[in-house]
Amino acid sequence: MRARHKPWADEYIQNHENIVVLNPVEQKGKWQQVFGNNNPIHLEIGTGKGQFVTGMATQFPKSNFVGMEVVKSIIVSAIEKVEQSGNSNIRLLNENANDLTEIFSENEVDTIYLNFSDPWPKNKHEKRRLTYASFLNQYRYILKDGGKVILKSDNKGLFEYSVVSFSKNDMVLDEVLLDLHAEGDPTNVLTEYEEKFSSQGQPIYRCKSHFKS
Amino acid sequence: MRARHKPWADEYIQNHENIVVLNPVEQKGKWQQVFGNNNPIHLEIGTGKGQFVTGMATQFPKSNFVGMEVVKSIIVSAIEKVEQSGNSNIRLLNENANDLTEIFSENEVDTIYLNFSDPWPKNKHEKRRLTYASFLNQYRYILKDGGKVILKSDNKGLFEYSVVSFSKNDMVLDEVLLDLHAEGDPTNVLTEYEEKFSSQGQPIYRCKSHFKS
Repeated sequence: MRARHKPWADEYIQNHENIVVLNPVEQKGKWQQVFGNNNPIHLEIGTGKGQFVTGMATQFPKSNFVGMEVVKSIIVSAIEKVEQSGNSNIRLLNENANDLTEIFSENEVDTIYLNFSDPWPKNKHEKRRLTYASFLNQYRYILKDGGKVILKSDNKGLFEYSVVSFSKNDMVLDEVLLDLHAEGDPTNVLTEYEEKFSSQGQPIYRCKSHFKS
Repeated sequence: MRARHKPWADEYIQNHENIVVLNPVEQKGKWQQVFGNNNPIHLEIGTGKGQFVTGMATQFPKSNFVGMEVVKSIIVSAIEKVEQSGNSNIRLLNENANDLTEIFSENEVDTIYLNFSDPWPKNKHEKRRLTYASFLNQYRYILKDGGKVILKSDNKGLFEYSVVSFSKNDMVLDEVLLDLHAEGDPTNVLTEYEEKFSSQGQPIYRCKSHFKS
């Protein structure tokens, strides 16, 4: 996603350390303490403007939600949304997905959400896809036994690639939906992208998967 | 598929034992002898009017093709098509998929094709779907190590179910395509259904999978 340059983003982020965890590596193994409860930790990688993570936190108050977003000018919008929602069960991280195992300890995460991730359609960029084997290995480490990876996408190529990649990396598919909105799931929280693409008649694909223990 | 009753079908089948193997159980473990060569055995379950199996046999003359079709009045059309094609590397069986392990011995089959199988959409009919666990167990027995199951369908529900079922039954996905005709595969042989549905703009789904050895 491209976003206009916002030079004030850095300062804005620093001023919201109640919502943005500025040194997440220091919280490794202690995320429930960050939230002050024993509720499960859900992680969205690529949280964008925060609509999904905020909606989930509202719908599931007995879970904790961590949203990661690497683009500073975009996480600012997510901070605003979290602040307005008043939910205390959300934290945001201005990080990318390469250091997950430094941020979370083994078995610390209950569920990982990959929503409308960059498809990186060129073969030479395969390693950047968030369902490439090296990322899956990190997910395996931080997820508890049986913890799920839930992927939503409008991108056929990324979805096809991801389902095969899960299967090749010791994951079992629990669900594959090729038109999520046609099949209907009343608990589904829409992301910004999902609202836009779905309103254009684009089917939304969803897959739920877990690692064999 | 419904087809008009053809009382002469039985006689027609009996009169074509050069193409239809009338007692396939007797050939268990000896299918290469039936074809008189050492070429791999490919099996289509639900061969319909025979367009796929005939097209494949033409395209791959160094493989043997067995087409199973349980409906007598439909297999008659397949017999006609095979006869007209002049291919000697096709045999048809007027059998259903329940007795596969009595017809083929362990490791005897190279590839299994499931083309536009009946989706049996009601939950209570799950056991009739050709990708239900009990069928997969038969496929595992008759397939050689690494032998593939290749499924094509226009039915979203059956496709979603099948991909999950493969994954839950020790199979690895090698390929998932959600719009086969858009992605293009010059070697793809179309079935009668595929021609019809694809011309109506319906996407065709394909999945290739194999059992972990």
